[in-house]
Amino acid sequence: MQTPDQHVLTQEEQAQLNQWWRAANYLSLGMLYLQDNPLMTRPLEPTDIKPRLLGHWGSDPGQNFIWAHLNRVIRREDLDMIYIAGPGHGAPATLANTYLEGTYSEVYPDRSQDAEGLRRFFHLFSFPGGVGSHCTPETPGSIHEGGELGYSLSHAFGAAFDNPDLLVAVVIGDGEAETGPAATAWHSNKFLNPARDGAVLPILHLNGYKLANPSILARIPEEELLNLFRGYGYAPHLVAGDDPGLMHEAMASALDACIAEIQAIQAAARQDHNHQRPVWPMIILRTPKGWTAPKTLDGHIIEGSWRAHQVPVLDVKTNPEHLTVLEDWFKSYHPEELFDEVGRLRDSLKALAPRGKRRMSANPHTNGGLLREPLRLPDFHDYQVRLAKPGQITIENTYVLGQYLRDVMRRNMHNFRVFGPDETASNRLQAIYEVTQKTWMAESFPVDSDGGELSPDGRVMEMLSEHTLEGWLEGYLLTGRHGLLNSYEAFVHVIDSMVNQHSKWIEKARFEVSWRAPIASLNILISSTVWRQDHNGFTHQDPGFLDVVTNKRADVVRIYLPPDANCLLSVADHCLASTDYVNIIVADKQPHLQYLTMDEAVTHCSKGIGLWPWASNDEGQVPDAVVASAGDVSTMEALAAVALLHEKLPELRVRFINVVDLFKLPPPSLHPHGMSDSDFVGLFTADRPVIFNFHGYPALIHKLIYRRPNHEYFHVHGYQEMGSINTPLQLAIENHIDRFSLAIDVIDHVPGLSIRAASVKQWLQDQQIFHLNYARTNGIDPQEIREWTYLVN
Amino acid sequence: MQTPDQHVLTQEEQAQLNQWWRAANYLSLGMLYLQDNPLMTRPLEPTDIKPRLLGHWGSDPGQNFIWAHLNRVIRREDLDMIYIAGPGHGAPATLANTYLEGTYSEVYPDRSQDAEGLRRFFHLFSFPGGVGSHCTPETPGSIHEGGELGYSLSHAFGAAFDNPDLLVAVVIGDGEAETGPAATAWHSNKFLNPARDGAVLPILHLNGYKLANPSILARIPEEELLNLFRGYGYAPHLVAGDDPGLMHEAMASALDACIAEIQAIQAAARQDHNHQRPVWPMIILRTPKGWTAPKTLDGHIIEGSWRAHQVPVLDVKTNPEHLTVLEDWFKSYHPEELFDEVGRLRDSLKALAPRGKRRMSANPHTNGGLLREPLRLPDFHDYQVRLAKPGQITIENTYVLGQYLRDVMRRNMHNFRVFGPDETASNRLQAIYEVTQKTWMAESFPVDSDGGELSPDGRVMEMLSEHTLEGWLEGYLLTGRHGLLNSYEAFVHVIDSMVNQHSKWIEKARFEVSWRAPIASLNILISSTVWRQDHNGFTHQDPGFLDVVTNKRADVVRIYLPPDANCLLSVADHCLASTDYVNIIVADKQPHLQYLTMDEAVTHCSKGIGLWPWASNDEGQVPDAVVASAGDVSTMEALAAVALLHEKLPELRVRFINVVDLFKLPPPSLHPHGMSDSDFVGLFTADRPVIFNFHGYPALIHKLIYRRPNHEYFHVHGYQEMGSINTPLQLAIENHIDRFSLAIDVIDHVPGLSIRAASVKQWLQDQQIFHLNYARTNGIDPQEIREWTYLVN
Repeated sequence: MQTPDQHVLTQEEQAQLNQWWRAANYLSLGMLYLQDNPLMTRPLEPTDIKPRLLGHWGSDPGQNFIWAHLNRVIRREDLDMIYIAGPGHGAPATLANTYLEGTYSEVYPDRSQDAEGLRRFFHLFSFPGGVGSHCTPETPGSIHEGGELGYSLSHAFGAAFDNPDLLVAVVIGDGEAETGPAATAWHSNKFLNPARDGAVLPILHLNGYKLANPSILARIPEEELLNLFRGYGYAPHLVAGDDPGLMHEAMASALDACIAEIQAIQAAARQDHNHQRPVWPMIILRTPKGWTAPKTLDGHIIEGSWRAHQVPVLDVKTNPEHLTVLEDWFKSYHPEELFDEVGRLRDSLKALAPRGKRRMSANPHTNGGLLREPLRLPDFHDYQVRLAKPGQITIENTYVLGQYLRDVMRRNMHNFRVFGPDETASNRLQAIYEVTQKTWMAESFPVDSDGGELSPDGRVMEMLSEHTLEGWLEGYLLTGRHGLLNSYEAFVHVIDSMVNQHSKWIEKARFEVSWRAPIASLNILISSTVWRQDHNGFTHQDPGFLDVVTNKRADVVRIYLPPDANCLLSVADHCLASTDYVNIIVADKQPHLQYLTMDEAVTHCSKGIGLWPWASNDEGQVPDAVVASAGDVSTMEALAAVALLHEKLPELRVRFINVVDLFKLPPPSLHPHGMSDSDFVGLFTADRPVIFNFHGYPALIHKLIYRRPNHEYFHVHGYQEMGSINTPLQLAIENHIDRFSLAIDVIDHVPGLSIRAASVKQWLQDQQIFHLNYARTNGIDPQEIREWTYLVN
Repeated sequence: MQTPDQHVLTQEEQAQLNQWWRAANYLSLGMLYLQDNPLMTRPLEPTDIKPRLLGHWGSDPGQNFIWAHLNRVIRREDLDMIYIAGPGHGAPATLANTYLEGTYSEVYPDRSQDAEGLRRFFHLFSFPGGVGSHCTPETPGSIHEGGELGYSLSHAFGAAFDNPDLLVAVVIGDGEAETGPAATAWHSNKFLNPARDGAVLPILHLNGYKLANPSILARIPEEELLNLFRGYGYAPHLVAGDDPGLMHEAMASALDACIAEIQAIQAAARQDHNHQRPVWPMIILRTPKGWTAPKTLDGHIIEGSWRAHQVPVLDVKTNPEHLTVLEDWFKSYHPEELFDEVGRLRDSLKALAPRGKRRMSANPHTNGGLLREPLRLPDFHDYQVRLAKPGQITIENTYVLGQYLRDVMRRNMHNFRVFGPDETASNRLQAIYEVTQKTWMAESFPVDSDGGELSPDGRVMEMLSEHTLEGWLEGYLLTGRHGLLNSYEAFVHVIDSMVNQHSKWIEKARFEVSWRAPIASLNILISSTVWRQDHNGFTHQDPGFLDVVTNKRADVVRIYLPPDANCLLSVADHCLASTDYVNIIVADKQPHLQYLTMDEAVTHCSKGIGLWPWASNDEGQVPDAVVASAGDVSTMEALAAVALLHEKLPELRVRFINVVDLFKLPPPSLHPHGMSDSDFVGLFTADRPVIFNFHGYPALIHKLIYRRPNHEYFHVHGYQEMGSINTPLQLAIENHIDRFSLAIDVIDHVPGLSIRAASVKQWLQDQQIFHLNYARTNGIDPQEIREWTYLVN
């Protein structure tokens, strides 16, 4: 243990810290156990105990200790600080401090600062109709629920970016520290600019155990531990022990040192313009797990063992001895010194909380929607691709988007960032680099900037960790800013679970927490998509992220598949302006045919689905078949199929439909965007075959439309896990999303076609064989396929 | 740069190393460019160049350098070594060395060791019908494709476990090192026992850049870098530079030191029984990106910049100057010294390869199926739950499984391990601890073992990183062993992408690589499932992993939802004996009702789906309605619904069906397990309402059965993202999977019911309200719900 500087604290200060700590510990314990007798004003009875004991004690006392000490420096320095609780089930700590600061009662008046309010506060913790055992969206002061471990640190950095006056204290627990996302998020310090951004103070809280096992970082030699964090680029301050008096001194000393170091770093950057990457401080706090719990119970060690992880004494309702142990435990915190006779906090305790918005539980950054300024969006029409006729020119759709994003960036240089795993240029968004750079605080050389400059002031965040990027973006959004993440389609699965959890946060925050203001949507651009990963092979082909997203609540998730650049612009504009959604945009980076003028695109995207008359020959009649598409490559192939049919079987009436907004497909009962059944049938017909060319796994379309009355007429094409090293057309043919397969499927499903249809079908099959052979021989597709134009026009 | 010891290498040795390196570089470059003129026996022509230039040069020369040096120590020490290539697109290096070692031509005789074979070898790289630019399953010597980054290190440790004589060299590239999974996998050294396991030699290969950006680890001060790896518990050896001569000396010196350290560690553990965690060596190799490429091109720096990442000179077919640059580049490796006039490797070069199975490209550990011994499985009948009647007793299904797994472990103490993120006991598999311990090489205290002992010899792997566990298990399976991973259901999404990628590996290896022997299936037990995470809340509720799995090729994936312990035993036995599948078993850890005797369970699980006559009252007639279930809680609620209907509306004929094998539901055209349509209709009826209570998201069932003729009669209940802090029944009611909702749905869908049905429905609705209120008031469900027994019996 580090020897604390003597006399950092006066005796009175130490007593105050200890009083707060005792109060928070008492409250945390009360949440785990009590449904009555909140002030322990009478002997503890079995009926005072909740019927089901839920919650986690393990990290609460340590976190309460941290919070007390943070409040001390907040008050002294008038700091703008927020608190991120990494330990998953440690909500009793956050909630206790929130209650002590008065915020909880302000937000939830029924949990008032009196005996009855306290009783309800205890009772409703981890109780049906109450609040959860994580820092759920219902928790004032929280932007991080921590149900799934791994993201506290990246959330903290995300909150600090572009918030120069903010200090984000983030507690990382034993368990979370072992996760991959946390292990690499420490490197976020290579992307934090002390002149422009706020500071993050990581506090690694080593209780020694995770759920049932010791933790790795708690069981390596101290020098190894310190080296690890020096290696991550931090200056670690170790605070270790179990004696409260010594620990208060040590923690106060360490925290004073950290604050001073942070202030010195910021002064050097802001006043002296030192652009070097600083070595930021961090704290390693070693305390016993379940600190202040009973030392032992029935011969088992409790305090300092994994047995203190959850509810340490379980059978108190039925075991009178254990009930006494619990009563003594409660009384060890001297509630009578903390609360007056009616259950109000004593004034001496109240006075220890910071004031107003300086309370970490009431800091507006933790209700980021309050601070959110709408993005200043340029007019997306200005970036339009001009075209005379559909299907005549090709362009990289995301390249056009990049030009739009460049000007979004230009107009919002304080609250908008773009995130991508080393692929922003690869995904053709490089126009952004005209107005900003790639954020980089580590060493750089002149040659690095050949292709996109690196700078501490950059606003494009590139690290080869989808986890860290997503965590940064979430933290950035939750504190009221805006952003966009771009990723290779296959590898966005890496953050399936993070997107799940963020969606769940939005679901709760939006519909069940009235005091949370809307935050900017999570916008994910999926590029380098399956159909243009023909050359990278099988590992790079997985469009299944959409399936994951469709499982989230319909009020929150949106999926867009713009077929061309103008549609992509329209969709992007819509998504960037929206709040409280998870918007997924699928748009490949390769050159694609352009179909719609901007006016047409806006109309099409507003409807989300539409009939393209110029590609149809049904002329207002019920067609013989419908060809539909969703996705850029899928649309090109579907249009080519229609063109082939128009040419080879002109008597066949084919209607062409394109879907931009995937959630137009399910009925309104399943998604608010869903079309009515009558509109759906009007578009797709009641009983004609629908050959649907989908970007992703075909079953997803069936999942969305199974309730439609004409569902049985749909024949969906999509990715079927057939891939290797291919050409684009070969990959399409192997998965039957190519023009020939689609045209054949139309012929197969329209009854009563002329004899000639059989020969057309044969010709289409021959074409497939020809092109498969061509690809295997030449390694490329024929030029005319690559330069294909819409034949009808 | 570390000063190399002088004269580690004789001049001849250095020349040999350099010759191998030049040869491998030449071959790597050839793969990127050439379709003809493989020996450069005539001037390079545009027609010699492939039409589409694909592949990555960046890390190839560095990896070739490593391989050459590893071969030197393999030959000297007769080492049993394999090579894992982390850098994603670095396959040209692995392929080049595989060809040089002769293995490639042995496996693929058309890629023979002569001019035509070499031409084909070059031509087929990244070419349709050829091989990919990653170390795909087609690559001899590879167990790690590396298409998605992050898993090389955990794969390496997985390969080393229980392989005491094996040394796994693993190269981690700049990009991969930034990923979360890689960042925490370094801690695997706390789980590697030098007495029992093999060794892992990590080689961090810093080229300076990832795709388009410098990499973090390449751009931190050297002391920071060294501290990081000291902090991870390694002894780093730094080898840095660009002068081949100096670098050969430095690398040889570092490698000799590493091998000596590894041998000393193993001797201390094996002969002197030193049980302390050793500090294993590692190498940090800094070389220029694209080492030996042209220094510059058109004013841009190539060697040593991100521009060397992929194909450094692109327009050689059309730009004669660039073609000359390329030709000079090829000739800089002096092919005439490497190959004789007919294209055979010169004998001096051939002699540098290790012999036979000592070649890393031919090491049998990399075709683990060859080494796989089937598990010695105990008779699972011995663990059966005995029951007189269905639905009378409750037991924790996974607790029973734990007893079986204990004896699987006992009989296979050298090739079976169980993996779980700190939750093996929480998931009630603790019986395993009767025969083995939890693997732990870090510090431990006596109190740690209160509840499951820690030991270097333990065979239960617990680290709070699903990524690392999954990576270890994959590495363990790919080298011919067996295992099972257990995880909380919601958080198995963390490894969605890893399971995707492993499934893709199996798909290819099994169906397209005839020389790969089958490996043990990847078995994942999903426990702590959504319906019993009522108390942990919304973040812990996500059954969507099944949706991800159903997107993989049907030949490879299997999903089982055993309703009780006997079925779980039967399913587990089946899965553990199987090969080349990804088996997902969903089984909650809480007490559940038991339904089937072991004989009944075996019959039921063999069929995968079945009518339960004792729960049906249709007596061989076409029923009025079918109630079906898949999943343990879902089955209990569905049975309770049927019991309520039998009691309240005895005239209603209801058939009860349970699904264990989810892939019985789709037609055989979509999955080999699929039932015929006639069997499906025979079971579910042609036109009676089917109320299906599913464990997961309901749309998944629709996705599986949309092609069934009676699909429109299915009404699927499942998780609908409605969760908070609940009781189990309350959670069920909120999502409509409870007995009352199901019974109501039956009543709603059976036409012509008696007037009494309306009052039964009202009663059912009243019951829901009662129980919701009961939960909110009492925090628990009524005792009779928890102790519910099947009412009909």
